[in-house]
Amino acid sequence: MILLSTRLSGFQENGIITDMNKGELKNLHSFFYPTSIAIVGASSHAHKIGNVIIKNLEKSGYRGDVLLVNPAMNSHGSYRVFHHYIDIPKIPDLAIMATPALISVNLIEEIAQKGTKNILIFAAGFKEAGAEGLKLEEKLIELAKKFQLNILGPNCLGFVNYPAHLNATFGSVPRESGNIRFASQSGALATGLFDWAAATGLGFKEFVTLGNKADINENNILEYWLEEEAKTKYKPQKNSGLSPYQPIGMYLESVVAGEEFIKKAKALSRKNPIVILKPGKSAAARNAMQSHTGAMAGDDDVFETAVEKIGAVRAEGLEDLFDLLRAFSWERAPRDNRIAIISNAGGPAVISADLLVSEGLELAKLSQRTQNILRKHLPRAAAVHNPVDVLGDASAKIYESALSAVLSESKVDGVIIILTPQMMTEIEETAEVIVRLSRKHQKPILCSFIGGTLISQGEYVLNRARIPSFRFPERATRAFGAMWKWKKSNLKISGNAEIKLPKFSVSALKRINNYTSRIAIERKNLTAYETNEIFSEAGINVPRYALISSFAEAQEFIHHHEFPVALKIISPKVVHKTDVGGIYTNINKPEELSFAVKKLQKLALEIRKNGDDAEIMIQKFVQGGLQVILGIKTDPSFGRVLLVGAGGIFAELINEKNLAIFPLTTGSFDHIISRSKIIKILSGFRGEKYAVDKFIYLIKQICSLSVTANFPEMEINPVIVTKNDAYAIDGRIYL
Amino acid sequence: MILLSTRLSGFQENGIITDMNKGELKNLHSFFYPTSIAIVGASSHAHKIGNVIIKNLEKSGYRGDVLLVNPAMNSHGSYRVFHHYIDIPKIPDLAIMATPALISVNLIEEIAQKGTKNILIFAAGFKEAGAEGLKLEEKLIELAKKFQLNILGPNCLGFVNYPAHLNATFGSVPRESGNIRFASQSGALATGLFDWAAATGLGFKEFVTLGNKADINENNILEYWLEEEAKTKYKPQKNSGLSPYQPIGMYLESVVAGEEFIKKAKALSRKNPIVILKPGKSAAARNAMQSHTGAMAGDDDVFETAVEKIGAVRAEGLEDLFDLLRAFSWERAPRDNRIAIISNAGGPAVISADLLVSEGLELAKLSQRTQNILRKHLPRAAAVHNPVDVLGDASAKIYESALSAVLSESKVDGVIIILTPQMMTEIEETAEVIVRLSRKHQKPILCSFIGGTLISQGEYVLNRARIPSFRFPERATRAFGAMWKWKKSNLKISGNAEIKLPKFSVSALKRINNYTSRIAIERKNLTAYETNEIFSEAGINVPRYALISSFAEAQEFIHHHEFPVALKIISPKVVHKTDVGGIYTNINKPEELSFAVKKLQKLALEIRKNGDDAEIMIQKFVQGGLQVILGIKTDPSFGRVLLVGAGGIFAELINEKNLAIFPLTTGSFDHIISRSKIIKILSGFRGEKYAVDKFIYLIKQICSLSVTANFPEMEINPVIVTKNDAYAIDGRIYL
Repeated sequence: MILLSTRLSGFQENGIITDMNKGELKNLHSFFYPTSIAIVGASSHAHKIGNVIIKNLEKSGYRGDVLLVNPAMNSHGSYRVFHHYIDIPKIPDLAIMATPALISVNLIEEIAQKGTKNILIFAAGFKEAGAEGLKLEEKLIELAKKFQLNILGPNCLGFVNYPAHLNATFGSVPRESGNIRFASQSGALATGLFDWAAATGLGFKEFVTLGNKADINENNILEYWLEEEAKTKYKPQKNSGLSPYQPIGMYLESVVAGEEFIKKAKALSRKNPIVILKPGKSAAARNAMQSHTGAMAGDDDVFETAVEKIGAVRAEGLEDLFDLLRAFSWERAPRDNRIAIISNAGGPAVISADLLVSEGLELAKLSQRTQNILRKHLPRAAAVHNPVDVLGDASAKIYESALSAVLSESKVDGVIIILTPQMMTEIEETAEVIVRLSRKHQKPILCSFIGGTLISQGEYVLNRARIPSFRFPERATRAFGAMWKWKKSNLKISGNAEIKLPKFSVSALKRINNYTSRIAIERKNLTAYETNEIFSEAGINVPRYALISSFAEAQEFIHHHEFPVALKIISPKVVHKTDVGGIYTNINKPEELSFAVKKLQKLALEIRKNGDDAEIMIQKFVQGGLQVILGIKTDPSFGRVLLVGAGGIFAELINEKNLAIFPLTTGSFDHIISRSKIIKILSGFRGEKYAVDKFIYLIKQICSLSVTANFPEMEINPVIVTKNDAYAIDGRIYL
Repeated sequence: MILLSTRLSGFQENGIITDMNKGELKNLHSFFYPTSIAIVGASSHAHKIGNVIIKNLEKSGYRGDVLLVNPAMNSHGSYRVFHHYIDIPKIPDLAIMATPALISVNLIEEIAQKGTKNILIFAAGFKEAGAEGLKLEEKLIELAKKFQLNILGPNCLGFVNYPAHLNATFGSVPRESGNIRFASQSGALATGLFDWAAATGLGFKEFVTLGNKADINENNILEYWLEEEAKTKYKPQKNSGLSPYQPIGMYLESVVAGEEFIKKAKALSRKNPIVILKPGKSAAARNAMQSHTGAMAGDDDVFETAVEKIGAVRAEGLEDLFDLLRAFSWERAPRDNRIAIISNAGGPAVISADLLVSEGLELAKLSQRTQNILRKHLPRAAAVHNPVDVLGDASAKIYESALSAVLSESKVDGVIIILTPQMMTEIEETAEVIVRLSRKHQKPILCSFIGGTLISQGEYVLNRARIPSFRFPERATRAFGAMWKWKKSNLKISGNAEIKLPKFSVSALKRINNYTSRIAIERKNLTAYETNEIFSEAGINVPRYALISSFAEAQEFIHHHEFPVALKIISPKVVHKTDVGGIYTNINKPEELSFAVKKLQKLALEIRKNGDDAEIMIQKFVQGGLQVILGIKTDPSFGRVLLVGAGGIFAELINEKNLAIFPLTTGSFDHIISRSKIIKILSGFRGEKYAVDKFIYLIKQICSLSVTANFPEMEINPVIVTKNDAYAIDGRIYL
């Protein structure tokens, strides 16, 4: 019985904050493809959202039924107008609410009773606006649950669905559609992105702004996209210039349910490159948790690990997000990482070649054959190796010869074309040449036409043909880097199986649970002694230890276990023993022992004076070996995370963060092991070999203990790994 | 005598590759402000460079005398035309050569004999074009020296000097002038930068393309700018919107004479922010040198250290170069690092706030008073702390109230204004409001109007008023970060004094020189034993050592110096002793000693079989302590560089690169000490204290030895620092 409940508990804990709406199966198809829409709060005043939304539906060519609701409106063009939602003679698939916050909430019940399941709320004034708004939002969530509604927003810009000819936002959206699907937690960002996209010729398929995510969140959208994909296989129109993907862009400030997010995003990412922008890098430090592990594995590090697990690309900023979406929207990822550069300018070619390497790409080596072809067509002074320098006076024809030769080279997987506007440069014609050759070859081409007004006509030609051109060559390099990163993560197919963790006996778990539940009444942090007790129970290798209260008791310990030993103060109040002089290590003689006992007795007395507990622990001291830190923390959205890093005095020095999000897969676990510098050292890359196998087993024991005994946070700092064994020296468990 | 010559030698070595033209004082004023110009190879054919340059001189409004030279030309408009240079009845200040490479070189003598000192050569086909071209270039350099000429190029685009109304390039340049001075090793880059600048409204004062740098190089240009500055104090026109600086931009692929470069750039940088783009980050790894120090302190790391020493900013790419130049050209640097953000969009504000911290900036804390003012003028739901969220429907008036309040706050040093094009956004009017308030306040304002077509009119208004606007908010944050970095480096005024290095006795130096000069006949790398000999002579702390050839001799050593010892193979052929099993450490017993001696005797025999030297060295083994690596390398352009880093097995692990370029100043030396993680550890930040003072003294001894005995490359890996001393354990000197 104990075992079962513990396991269940461990299993639940795995997901941590599970989606509150998980139980309700959301079918969002009718939300985004409604056959009829009611506009609640429809208006005749040109600048009101209730009017803008009507116009937007018209302009986008929505062909379904549009019904207007406003108690003060009697007619509006050829639309059917109703004073009350309940009066509508059919059940609208979607209700778009252009009403203020309070009215919106008050009308929900009427809409629900009519039978409409899908509601979009634009209004701000909810949880983002303080305590009163928060109450309104809670009410909204309650209603959504009660009536099993799908609510998008509030505090959002709405959504656009190009295949449904439906602009359900109150903003302007790009006229042309495309293949990008986007979910944004910021509506304002969408307006900037739309304006930029329209100018560039970039097109979306769907764009959903999530707002406050009161009900529909990023996971529901991902789920919906997965369902849509299962229905129909995507194929771009021939000669559209579009890539074979439906890339996904996301702007997120929080992730609701991490495990679900990873699962769904990963499933989508196999065919659809995902680019995520999420601020929070610098905030990481602020959210330091109580343990060192917490501080080391900040929220952002966990998110970064999640992105890696998904196989997505994290955008470095807004520009990066925009650029990468464009690259994935218009070009296919290179098959391998060998990139060629063609340029009429030495400097920018050098800059790009330089950056290729740091992006994990390679400068393609051109065969003698290709070099000969280039030599034949290019001027004598041109460079025919990679980067190919077509020289400053290169005509469109010269670019054509160079590009044609390079695209035909089997050892080239992608091409960057750089153009600066020099005296003889045929900007537009060169762009046309690129378009022509790009249609003939399957290989991705990214351009960088560097400049402003002069080169803009060339850019326009490229944009129309959906060949990405960036004003700065480093952006092209970065885009190829991200494409290759996505491709590579997709090539790795193994390693998704969950790893097997060692199991503990039923009786041991029972004893551990009893022990911790007694402590949990008073406090959440276990002392090093209490942690040792649990570790011992779980079979984790802890050097011999005991509580002592006198020199005589310490001598008794020595009598059985010999020198050297360490002496430590044990108190729930003392987290950093070193700071209070609460630790004596490598004690080898009775005099040293006696000195340490006296000092710690005095310290214990002081702590007790303040009404806190304090005891002294003696423990066998492990000589030599390397110090490693091992931790488990629980991230508010991604749940349990494992951390392995250099420990002891080297913790700050080496500053390596090897994280893996639970459930641990063989892939992520192996990755942590292979990437960790400290494990590389332990494996003996410079002579001495340490007991890595024992250490890895210890990691698995700790993971298992954390899950089965349901410990959200644990830390061993340090684990000492010697040549023959691995010891948990200083462990702390947080309940 | 020995002492003197050694010192001199050390002194010379300090600069390493000194500018070959150093002796000739270049007065470049008449080059860039010529009263008369001869165009050699002038042409009547519209597309020839010899024609374009005539038109460019006209268009730029050059008022000096223009004289055309071409044996086949009889007249050209109202210009005076000569068949030969020698026929010109005056001495032109500047000869611009629009002739091919070979002809250009052949004409130099005639030009020189006429008395013209300044020559600009456009032609390509020199050293960049292979062996033949290289010969031509050598000939050119020879002529420049012989006649004491100033030659710009060859293989360059020429230069523009706006104050002289002189476009001496064969490209189009922006019409409007500005305050930026630029030196570029790439002419093609200039064309892209010009086009971009013209579109943005950015203006240059001078733009010099350096080409192959056969004669005039970046240092001459910096020198010239220093001289010009000494003559007249720069002040921007009132209400021009220009910053008080004359920012300097540089694109370099190599640095000719590092020490000179640092000195001149540093002098200019005090008043003029310098932004340098130099590729080479990824190339660093490839140029690994023979020692570990060489690999750790790659060329690019040295350049990075030089940039820091100058107080310049290194551009991360072309976009960064362009953006930072614009920021420095149009806005003054913030007085302190407290930045406020005003935005009508939550997401982008969060992104910017997030990045501020990583740029070394602070999110300004608004006073209660300012918050109250904001509360009064902004809608209720607006956020009045920093970032200030004026909400999505903010009018120009709302932006005005917010910006006015924030600019008046004493704890704000600069403002970022973010705008997304939402339904109610008054884009142009908001830009006008910003312009108005910017004129009233001294504080720097950087904008980010996010989008494309919609926001371009607002951008235009800002550009005209010279307020930088970036399409992506992270660019504004980055620009403030770079400005603050420059400002900060300018606030540090101390630490420029050269540090005092310990001196060696005359006799010791003499012995060292004798010793090394004997070895130098055969090879350049000293063995660990030879290095020990020199270290001992120089008073550097080396554990006792001796060469042995038998177990008996080893026992004799033990008899005097006791266990533990280490045994090492000594051979010029063996660089990594560990790899060949050539080292035995921590030998504590006769059996271990006997074993090691046998093994090394066998190894020595094998090495000798191949005709190489091999001996066995016994040395006292230092127990405990921390391992540090200490190195000196000589960079081809910046000369001698000191490296301090974690050593032993932790070298790869910690991977810290603390470099200082010679001559060592107190500032750079203290910086190395304060930044080094390993020195932090040694200083006992986590308990145990090591003999840091002894280690620092050892660093200084090594620096002194390298300079006075003229060793270009040295390495001690490791130095062991114990609680009481620092030992040079395994040293290598390269001659």
